[in-house]
Amino acid sequence: MEPGVAIVGAGHTRFGALTEGPRALLAEAAREALAGIDRGLPRGAAVDEAFLATLGFGGWQIGNASAVLAESAGMVGVPVTRIENACASGGYAIRAAAQAIRSGRVRVALVAGVEKMTDTPSARRRYWLGVSGDTEWERSAGLTFAGVYGMIASRYAHERPRTREALTAVAVKNHANGARNPKAHLRKAVRAEEVEAAPPVADPLRLFDCCPVTDGAAALVLADASIARRCTDTPVWIGGIGAASDVLAVQERPTLLEFPATRRAAAAAYADAGWGPESVDVLEVHDCFTIAELLALEDLGIAPRGGGAIDLTLSGATGPGGERPVNPDGGLKAKGHPIGTTGVSQLYELFLQLRAAAGNRQVPGAERALAHNVGGSGASATVTLVERG
Amino acid sequence: MEPGVAIVGAGHTRFGALTEGPRALLAEAAREALAGIDRGLPRGAAVDEAFLATLGFGGWQIGNASAVLAESAGMVGVPVTRIENACASGGYAIRAAAQAIRSGRVRVALVAGVEKMTDTPSARRRYWLGVSGDTEWERSAGLTFAGVYGMIASRYAHERPRTREALTAVAVKNHANGARNPKAHLRKAVRAEEVEAAPPVADPLRLFDCCPVTDGAAALVLADASIARRCTDTPVWIGGIGAASDVLAVQERPTLLEFPATRRAAAAAYADAGWGPESVDVLEVHDCFTIAELLALEDLGIAPRGGGAIDLTLSGATGPGGERPVNPDGGLKAKGHPIGTTGVSQLYELFLQLRAAAGNRQVPGAERALAHNVGGSGASATVTLVERG
Repeated sequence: MEPGVAIVGAGHTRFGALTEGPRALLAEAAREALAGIDRGLPRGAAVDEAFLATLGFGGWQIGNASAVLAESAGMVGVPVTRIENACASGGYAIRAAAQAIRSGRVRVALVAGVEKMTDTPSARRRYWLGVSGDTEWERSAGLTFAGVYGMIASRYAHERPRTREALTAVAVKNHANGARNPKAHLRKAVRAEEVEAAPPVADPLRLFDCCPVTDGAAALVLADASIARRCTDTPVWIGGIGAASDVLAVQERPTLLEFPATRRAAAAAYADAGWGPESVDVLEVHDCFTIAELLALEDLGIAPRGGGAIDLTLSGATGPGGERPVNPDGGLKAKGHPIGTTGVSQLYELFLQLRAAAGNRQVPGAERALAHNVGGSGASATVTLVERG
Repeated sequence: MEPGVAIVGAGHTRFGALTEGPRALLAEAAREALAGIDRGLPRGAAVDEAFLATLGFGGWQIGNASAVLAESAGMVGVPVTRIENACASGGYAIRAAAQAIRSGRVRVALVAGVEKMTDTPSARRRYWLGVSGDTEWERSAGLTFAGVYGMIASRYAHERPRTREALTAVAVKNHANGARNPKAHLRKAVRAEEVEAAPPVADPLRLFDCCPVTDGAAALVLADASIARRCTDTPVWIGGIGAASDVLAVQERPTLLEFPATRRAAAAAYADAGWGPESVDVLEVHDCFTIAELLALEDLGIAPRGGGAIDLTLSGATGPGGERPVNPDGGLKAKGHPIGTTGVSQLYELFLQLRAAAGNRQVPGAERALAHNVGGSGASATVTLVERG
């Protein structure tokens, strides 16, 4: 048996348009994650390995940013690997950390994500918002990510009734959740009428269908079973992780209505954990646009394909108090989506949820949870399953 | 015991100013690595996981380039992680692949490195050549990598006699080696007088002290022990790997005359392998500038600190037929240094050397070898030890 892997500490800056730069944000998140370990690391144990998830938005340190994490977290010397898989960087970094611990060579690993998006001038910001799309065919033709997800939403709406209603319900729910999360960027509830009357961004997606441009960092401390049991009574175990790739350009896929990378990653994660979608009590899914939450619920096997996500969403099951709460922290939609940070931030929330420490957004009795992280328009994806000890 | 990890296949494009783009280069290297496995992968085995090492020089695909490897290598669906640790991306990617296999979750992994540097216009090329240096203090003050290594060489020469002579010997040796490597970029022997009369780049470094700007890709197939033994009679085992970080800016280090990241990475690798520098038959070290080869020999424990590398180099021990051949493929200096590719290319050479397949540059009887890969000016480093079965 390989050693089990647990999350034993987690840190998170507030999300928003912040004055701090990447170094300060990383320092804050890493410090909070390490300081928050209930009994601290046992004598003789220390962080053996670290992973930095970042796109490096705006070009603050295009090469070798891993060294900045070593400096910011006060662990110069420790091996640090920068992992970049676009918006799925965080999920892939957590998976790399789990593999490192499962290798038996590493006992404690730090995973940190950071992105500083708001201080990039507007022309450059548009450039950086597109760099994870297919450069050869899509970006050069002017297709943005809002454009890609707008096309997906159009096709979804064409095939399935009540799509607009469900998109609006996702926006209203995630904004209401974000309003309860003190670390969220958009702490503002919105009404359905506001969502549907908002300015269009990429038809049929409107302003409140799109995640904001956000700064922030998050960090996790992962440890092997022996360390984990010594430093806390409530470790959150990584039950399984799956990841997958896909072609970069959506035009090369047979359908717009699913992300095969999510489906493959989920299958791998469920197989790794030995339990399936029916056991999941709470989910963090990658809702960069409202349509993405609907796709995710179907690709993850939470709702039946072919529109099941519409029924599930409109039934209220994905809201607070529902059977399958989704994005209790507000999701990318309202909490914000600092690219490399997102996958790590999702596990921060699930760490709180499984330790019954999520305050007024707590999902009662949550024991098993799922995080779903997507890179770009589905060229990479991870699914991470966590469970209470 | 964790499973052993072996290299079972390796591929390498020619290096130089090439017409192909990153996709074609990756496809060629990956195809050669997979096709070169002696008996092929056993029935039921396939690449489970892949890693892409690239800085993404010139911005060809700043985000999500991992999907391009999946497409180019014909393995869409397989999880692909992009790893970027500047010039040490390749070494870190190999280490991540070894950790994945040691985790027991992955049996076969592909590691590929690629960089396309020559088709970037000259102003942008200067920008991209600097992006792995400290942005906050060094780049903004106009310090280039040639400048950093020039300062190091100046200090080294100030403290140690015959430095210029040794730098020249490194250049002459590595160019002679490169001339014997059909895949090298600069296949041109140079004479000592030419080296010392060449135009200055960053005093005391002159033209032939500096590596060229090069395109190219390389790939390795790693497998666990059970697969490795079934697909070849001559696997090359990864005996140990170490990695380390350091502060990004050289101004923050106590001395210019060593790279602590190399020293820490070497100590970790020797401990992992259970053998030390005295056992190494052949080395690939990170000679982005001639001075870097001298530093490396001391930091790796091959030569005594305080100038031992000068004596070793001037004795001829690091040349062909010497006791400790270094960079038989020409090194970064003459083979070329396509940034993310370099760490992978080093193991390609050692794979050939340990299988006695290196043709007219073969080190006779090589059984144990070392690869040393540095990111930027020493902010990250890896040391990989390989051995014959």
